[in-house]
Amino acid sequence: MSSGEGGLYRSRLGKKMDEDALSYLSSLNEDREIFLEDVEGTEAHVIMLCEQGILANNEAKQILRALEDLKKKIISGEIELKGDFEDVHEFVESYVISRVGMEIGGKVHSGRSRNDQVALDIRLRLRRYILETWRESLKLAEALLSKAEKKKEALVLHYTHLQQAQVGYLSHYLLSHLDHLLRDLKRLEECYHRVNRSPLGACAIAGSTLPLNRDRIAELLGFEDVVENSIDAVSSRDFALEAVSAATIMMVNLSRIAEDLIIWSSSEFGYIELPDDLASPSSVMPHKKNPCILELLRAKAGKSIGLLTSLLTMTKGIPTGYDRDLQEEKPVIWEAFKETRDSIRILAKVIEKMDFKDERAYEAAAQSFAPAIELAEALIKHSKLSLREAHRLVGALVAELHKSDLMLRDSSLKLLNELAERVLGRKIDFPEDVFARIIDASEVPSFRETKGASSIGEVEKMIENRRKRIEEARDSLRNILKNLRNSKEKFEKSLESFLNPA
Amino acid sequence: MSSGEGGLYRSRLGKKMDEDALSYLSSLNEDREIFLEDVEGTEAHVIMLCEQGILANNEAKQILRALEDLKKKIISGEIELKGDFEDVHEFVESYVISRVGMEIGGKVHSGRSRNDQVALDIRLRLRRYILETWRESLKLAEALLSKAEKKKEALVLHYTHLQQAQVGYLSHYLLSHLDHLLRDLKRLEECYHRVNRSPLGACAIAGSTLPLNRDRIAELLGFEDVVENSIDAVSSRDFALEAVSAATIMMVNLSRIAEDLIIWSSSEFGYIELPDDLASPSSVMPHKKNPCILELLRAKAGKSIGLLTSLLTMTKGIPTGYDRDLQEEKPVIWEAFKETRDSIRILAKVIEKMDFKDERAYEAAAQSFAPAIELAEALIKHSKLSLREAHRLVGALVAELHKSDLMLRDSSLKLLNELAERVLGRKIDFPEDVFARIIDASEVPSFRETKGASSIGEVEKMIENRRKRIEEARDSLRNILKNLRNSKEKFEKSLESFLNPA
Amino acid sequence: MSSGEGGLYRSRLGKKMDEDALSYLSSLNEDREIFLEDVEGTEAHVIMLCEQGILANNEAKQILRALEDLKKKIISGEIELKGDFEDVHEFVESYVISRVGMEIGGKVHSGRSRNDQVALDIRLRLRRYILETWRESLKLAEALLSKAEKKKEALVLHYTHLQQAQVGYLSHYLLSHLDHLLRDLKRLEECYHRVNRSPLGACAIAGSTLPLNRDRIAELLGFEDVVENSIDAVSSRDFALEAVSAATIMMVNLSRIAEDLIIWSSSEFGYIELPDDLASPSSVMPHKKNPCILELLRAKAGKSIGLLTSLLTMTKGIPTGYDRDLQEEKPVIWEAFKETRDSIRILAKVIEKMDFKDERAYEAAAQSFAPAIELAEALIKHSKLSLREAHRLVGALVAELHKSDLMLRDSSLKLLNELAERVLGRKIDFPEDVFARIIDASEVPSFRETKGASSIGEVEKMIENRRKRIEEARDSLRNILKNLRNSKEKFEKSLESFLNPA
Amino acid sequence: MSSGEGGLYRSRLGKKMDEDALSYLSSLNEDREIFLEDVEGTEAHVIMLCEQGILANNEAKQILRALEDLKKKIISGEIELKGDFEDVHEFVESYVISRVGMEIGGKVHSGRSRNDQVALDIRLRLRRYILETWRESLKLAEALLSKAEKKKEALVLHYTHLQQAQVGYLSHYLLSHLDHLLRDLKRLEECYHRVNRSPLGACAIAGSTLPLNRDRIAELLGFEDVVENSIDAVSSRDFALEAVSAATIMMVNLSRIAEDLIIWSSSEFGYIELPDDLASPSSVMPHKKNPCILELLRAKAGKSIGLLTSLLTMTKGIPTGYDRDLQEEKPVIWEAFKETRDSIRILAKVIEKMDFKDERAYEAAAQSFAPAIELAEALIKHSKLSLREAHRLVGALVAELHKSDLMLRDSSLKLLNELAERVLGRKIDFPEDVFARIIDASEVPSFRETKGASSIGEVEKMIENRRKRIEEARDSLRNILKNLRNSKEKFEKSLESFLNPA
Repeated sequence: MSSGEGGLYRSRLGKKMDEDALSYLSSLNEDREIFLEDVEGTEAHVIMLCEQGILANNEAKQILRALEDLKKKIISGEIELKGDFEDVHEFVESYVISRVGMEIGGKVHSGRSRNDQVALDIRLRLRRYILETWRESLKLAEALLSKAEKKKEALVLHYTHLQQAQVGYLSHYLLSHLDHLLRDLKRLEECYHRVNRSPLGACAIAGSTLPLNRDRIAELLGFEDVVENSIDAVSSRDFALEAVSAATIMMVNLSRIAEDLIIWSSSEFGYIELPDDLASPSSVMPHKKNPCILELLRAKAGKSIGLLTSLLTMTKGIPTGYDRDLQEEKPVIWEAFKETRDSIRILAKVIEKMDFKDERAYEAAAQSFAPAIELAEALIKHSKLSLREAHRLVGALVAELHKSDLMLRDSSLKLLNELAERVLGRKIDFPEDVFARIIDASEVPSFRETKGASSIGEVEKMIENRRKRIEEARDSLRNILKNLRNSKEKFEKSLESFLNPA
Repeated sequence: MSSGEGGLYRSRLGKKMDEDALSYLSSLNEDREIFLEDVEGTEAHVIMLCEQGILANNEAKQILRALEDLKKKIISGEIELKGDFEDVHEFVESYVISRVGMEIGGKVHSGRSRNDQVALDIRLRLRRYILETWRESLKLAEALLSKAEKKKEALVLHYTHLQQAQVGYLSHYLLSHLDHLLRDLKRLEECYHRVNRSPLGACAIAGSTLPLNRDRIAELLGFEDVVENSIDAVSSRDFALEAVSAATIMMVNLSRIAEDLIIWSSSEFGYIELPDDLASPSSVMPHKKNPCILELLRAKAGKSIGLLTSLLTMTKGIPTGYDRDLQEEKPVIWEAFKETRDSIRILAKVIEKMDFKDERAYEAAAQSFAPAIELAEALIKHSKLSLREAHRLVGALVAELHKSDLMLRDSSLKLLNELAERVLGRKIDFPEDVFARIIDASEVPSFRETKGASSIGEVEKMIENRRKRIEEARDSLRNILKNLRNSKEKFEKSLESFLNPA
Repeated sequence: MSSGEGGLYRSRLGKKMDEDALSYLSSLNEDREIFLEDVEGTEAHVIMLCEQGILANNEAKQILRALEDLKKKIISGEIELKGDFEDVHEFVESYVISRVGMEIGGKVHSGRSRNDQVALDIRLRLRRYILETWRESLKLAEALLSKAEKKKEALVLHYTHLQQAQVGYLSHYLLSHLDHLLRDLKRLEECYHRVNRSPLGACAIAGSTLPLNRDRIAELLGFEDVVENSIDAVSSRDFALEAVSAATIMMVNLSRIAEDLIIWSSSEFGYIELPDDLASPSSVMPHKKNPCILELLRAKAGKSIGLLTSLLTMTKGIPTGYDRDLQEEKPVIWEAFKETRDSIRILAKVIEKMDFKDERAYEAAAQSFAPAIELAEALIKHSKLSLREAHRLVGALVAELHKSDLMLRDSSLKLLNELAERVLGRKIDFPEDVFARIIDASEVPSFRETKGASSIGEVEKMIENRRKRIEEARDSLRNILKNLRNSKEKFEKSLESFLNPA
Repeated sequence: MSSGEGGLYRSRLGKKMDEDALSYLSSLNEDREIFLEDVEGTEAHVIMLCEQGILANNEAKQILRALEDLKKKIISGEIELKGDFEDVHEFVESYVISRVGMEIGGKVHSGRSRNDQVALDIRLRLRRYILETWRESLKLAEALLSKAEKKKEALVLHYTHLQQAQVGYLSHYLLSHLDHLLRDLKRLEECYHRVNRSPLGACAIAGSTLPLNRDRIAELLGFEDVVENSIDAVSSRDFALEAVSAATIMMVNLSRIAEDLIIWSSSEFGYIELPDDLASPSSVMPHKKNPCILELLRAKAGKSIGLLTSLLTMTKGIPTGYDRDLQEEKPVIWEAFKETRDSIRILAKVIEKMDFKDERAYEAAAQSFAPAIELAEALIKHSKLSLREAHRLVGALVAELHKSDLMLRDSSLKLLNELAERVLGRKIDFPEDVFARIIDASEVPSFRETKGASSIGEVEKMIENRRKRIEEARDSLRNILKNLRNSKEKFEKSLESFLNPA
């Protein structure tokens, strides 16, 4: 399709646009993402125009037929977003005019400008992206919870500074990321309600002198409300900045899971093995099994940070009102959400299918110095040492063992007693059986008493509670989807009443 | 003060730390921001330890006295955060030990690690920054609303692409930014509740074997709840990433106001003049009056974007657990909020005190082509043209006037009629009085019919409604402050009962 | 095409890759940019393998024929980069094998891995992007110089803080950006020589046990040298980070030109008008003529900053060696250079075709206070005032005039004399004719004596000198292109000698 | 010190600046970095003014005495940069005036503005930062080279995807980072020559009408040339953007070394141990020895990325000319270089002092599958397999061994032969002795034939060559320092001739 002589909107401007300029300006490529949104938004606008008496019934009917026809062609792939148009808006309007003529088709844009129209399309599309991300997040949440349940008692070392810190449970590790994810979801949900508002009717920037019904369009398209102030409606993009921030914060945390799993996949750690169908070979090293998926996820978190930076930087310091700068934000928003949604999906698979090596992880814990802190705390409890004394004593014990390449489980209460005299200058009294259980990796977590600790009891409580919270998040999503479906039904009924009046 | 031989915690490590290494590692400088927070968090910890029987009453009393003493010295400036310590935590513990001896003082850190302690301090400090920003935002909101009321009927051009777009009201412009600000505040508020949770009791990463009462500490310090999962408590920083994202989104929007006002301050626009006490001179050009404050605000938005980038990048791809990387995040968080809070404060002054030149702004509107869109819409209403026809006709009118350097108000219905025949090939019928009123800048906004448009009626409705919404935001803040005060009182009563038992 | 059962490289890994995983992993989409590069790099590798006796002549011939055939199909569009491959490398090798069989085709990858191969492809492609950007930059340099010549004597106000600062020449403004651009070009040139080195032969990471001739491949492909250390060759991306930094710095400066021209296009400034074919209309406001091209350029500078952030963040903190993270960098590099190259091209057109309104700009200068600084300096020269006294006196003059809405040209020596007595407490002696010339906008620049000042004499000197420097930059480019052409010819002769031996 | 009534420059502006505004505006804090630079730049300006007859000898003498006095007080700490000044420039001028009176002191700023002055100061300070970074980089280069020499034959696994890839040498690893560092240095050097140019004499933006000698100032201050175009001189910051880009690229690579060493410090890898004086303890876990220095370095790379983002974003889209936005760039530049310089210094210590565990690293290599690729290549050489066949065969071997938890060194030629028949369907012929040597980790690198491979021969060549290249880099630095010393001497002689004329 072509725009005819020089573009639909060039009423004042004499010449056609320079070709380089048009190719530089045109957003047709990235507008594929909002092709359907633009058509549906236009349909809602037309219905409202007719209800308000701005379009005659017969005019609305013709225009809506053309739009329905276009929708089908888009879905079937029969028509593509191509040609010498600046954007999807010019394309769709030109299509309508080419089908029903200028006299009627020329009315479709009444009371509307591309400024409010593109804000509408972005909100419609972003809304969908948020919901898709939400759905995938629920799957990841399920995968984390379900793996935590299955592996509830699998021991693993908890690390700080990538140094072995304390013996704990894989389930506790997985639940910690589930909690992060639930906050991520909450952020997305709160943002959703700011996204889900209709800017249409703001027209160019100051509103219109035509008797538009802004609330009606909002209702037809499933929005919760309008963005009232007309300048705000066309000028603000905080809703998108917020959504992409939330997505980026998610990605940043997922990148930490990826980093853990990459390290755990190394021969040296060896805690997990990816299934063959999620691993990558080397083109030349026959022995390699690379966790490429996880490296890409880590990289995509970096990409997301850059995308957010782009968005913020593009918005910073531009005048209030619609500026063409905002056009560049569209593909960045799509990209950020596509990467996030797909990364969550793939990570859910990894969590579900990865083979955690219980034996190996147990052995690493058993051979570590990790119960040192519990030993120190037991010295507080049983030997009345202050933490600092206990810390000093156990520190000396570790240094001593380290010298002879021994681990904590190779030590003895005798050695501890000797060191106490040397380091603290006095004898200590410490129960033999406690000592034995403390330096046993599989026993030490059971000593933990605090809420939310890495212990079986706490893990069980958290599993139960988090199952409910996942269900709540699922319910919120279901409600939103139900509302959208209801709106959609009403919208289609309205549409139907025009296309095929009783 | 000095840490004694080689640092309090070097039980296992033999030597003192290398000087370059210590200076590279130490966060004492940036920990000034959390000096008091660290002491108060420690006090709450000590009270809880005693209530749980981990510290004797007498021990707690001595430690709390030392801490209260330290607090006074911090406030009076008598003591400074200096010396060969890695951070404020080592400093405070060393101070206590230096005052009450190792036997008792060495117990203060029982069941705690720097990992949960620093997470606590950051949350305490960030909580305060958010509330300060909130308070300043309310002042800015007031300034915008009150200016909008005072200048309700002052005309100004609304711009798109920095081109004169439509005639409207300054009040409408100000209200559009008020609406953005109210969303900014909502984001801060939602984030506040995720920040305001206590991580203490997570200890190093896996929780403690001492019978700590995590909820009690949360209560003493005014937190709404604990961060339950111990790994999550020490490892996650999404609460800070979110807070800084929200602050950055605010700054990005404020930078657009700054850009507008910088442009409006130019001789060419001349819509506003800053009062002398908010303007900067040139060191060499005697005639200059520079809007430096606004340029700095614009730059600080850029800085905020970089600070957010830093935070996200530092967090990306590091292993789960506490990593020292997180230390670098502290000063970035403080910086981001200081800049935001101060920028909001200064902008409130600018809005309040700037001199808007009604006459000049009116004249610019009157001389513009801006009513062209309303003329086109009137042609739809009165002459039954389609928007496209009307657009073409008015476009031709503008082109014609432009040729002879005339403006819309210099045009005539006669010319419009002639052009209609030439461009549309037919006569049109258009009422003379409507034409006259439409091309009159002071009349044209009154034609607007849509919700949220730049018209007196809509502006009045919005002013009234926004006054209520500001009040709601103020009430939310008041409630939060009240809760914090209540906690503080209980905390001080507990403290008192130790220090001066009845 | 399809990779056969489960991928060419899955010798150890049993199963096919999961579909979601493959779609997440695959870089086929972005590898379109290096499809030809990959084929040519492979051809050079094959020639070298044969020369080194690793491939038989007859084997090389068959493989090269298949590759030449593939090249033609790529150029004609007959074959597309699609299928279940991880990347272009697997695709090309699979193609060769499908054509000449596993026995011979299976040798094509000898001594090579995807790690050095992709580094090669990126360098080949980036090299081309840099040269394209260079060429466009020369056009922009020409446009700036040529406009500066044509408009040598057109007066314009120079601004600081967007406030009218001093009267000067448009040519001087244009030359300032030419100087920036010449530094941008220098940075690109220096970077080019770091990009233009061959990593091939590093194999996976440690080099190969086959007798590869790394220098020969470098020669065949027009590289200046090899990247010697094999780890460095596959692991480092500083060459790309540097190139994208240089491009981003360019874009950031171009965004300032865009900002100036957007402001100058406003009705209020009115210094320039874009030709119709470079301007955009509004869909609804018939009078609008929007500088959308320039707004997009400004936004694209923001995008570039984000792209650079992405690249840096993806590289930060990943282990030395090839990590799959690096795959994500490819499309970011292409995107950054495409935007830069196209932005430079379009800006050259804008500079060339924009209509600078001499009269309007002159009138603005004439009506300004801008000669105030020259008046102060003249008071130093002629009246022996210190700068501070002169600044104070002229400041008082401006304040006085401002009160009565008068401009500098409306003032009189008499007023100045009166103010001197009032402000400085003494009479001054100042020549009448100097006063008259100083407050005349068209005369004031001629008073300037410093090197590089905004004066006709200095502008002329700079125009002459910059013409030579553009020529030098063009010569450097020509030399590089000649070297590449020479290599290409030799390469093709080698190729020919295999395909059609004498 | 105080600025007197309302600021030195407020000739036109009536009132004192608002306190909040001044505190928001003032850059005194960050100007500490350029206090001395500002004084020295002013001295050079005064000498030139006098040589050009703009100041009398006696006036220059008095001003220079005051400035010399101020310099001494700055160095001794007797005077601090405090008070109600906007910046260091106002402070220094006010100081001079307070010492020698307005009549003479008021002349110090003749022909100068803060716009060119601050550009000068930034260039002077940045120049020094670059040279400091250069010097530290040479130390790190030395540390890498010297460690590579000492550990020339220490085996280590080279990793890709953090999976064991090939057996190689620690020296080769260290040299790869040396090569990166040498490119980093080259970038800094090239940038240095763009930084080292004098903007002074550009005055506000258009140059001055006083007979300033711009070249003379450049000479006095050791600059290579002037920034000719006066707009370019005050408006452009590409020199700083480039310098910070170069620093950030360095930091990003250093963060990869940090990541490697953090991973190598883990108990699981255990390749290195940090000396106690470079390691950090845990406050609560007595066994911990944390590589905090390296984690901070990694984080600081993230911070640098954010600082660069800030700089680019602040510069993007602001009008040409001096804008106050540029003020915010100063502290960001200092911060970026301080972090880089200090990180390089600390890393040099780590490289020098870390204890590489030869035995442990050897054992890991010996137990790995890493020689698989060399086995495949040997099959090409000795058994005439194609790479794909060899890859398949060795892949099968690895899979087989993996099943029984065996490593490559546990395998036999017999097994290989059996697998060949099964996988390839035919017998192969492979020399027994080659097989034995290939699967021996300490032998396998000696098979490598390519330039720059991880083999003793190549490592030795590279060590020798890189020693020369470090020497060259040192010579370049020495030359630059010599030139600066020469300029300094001349400058001091000039100064002396004023202060104490013969």
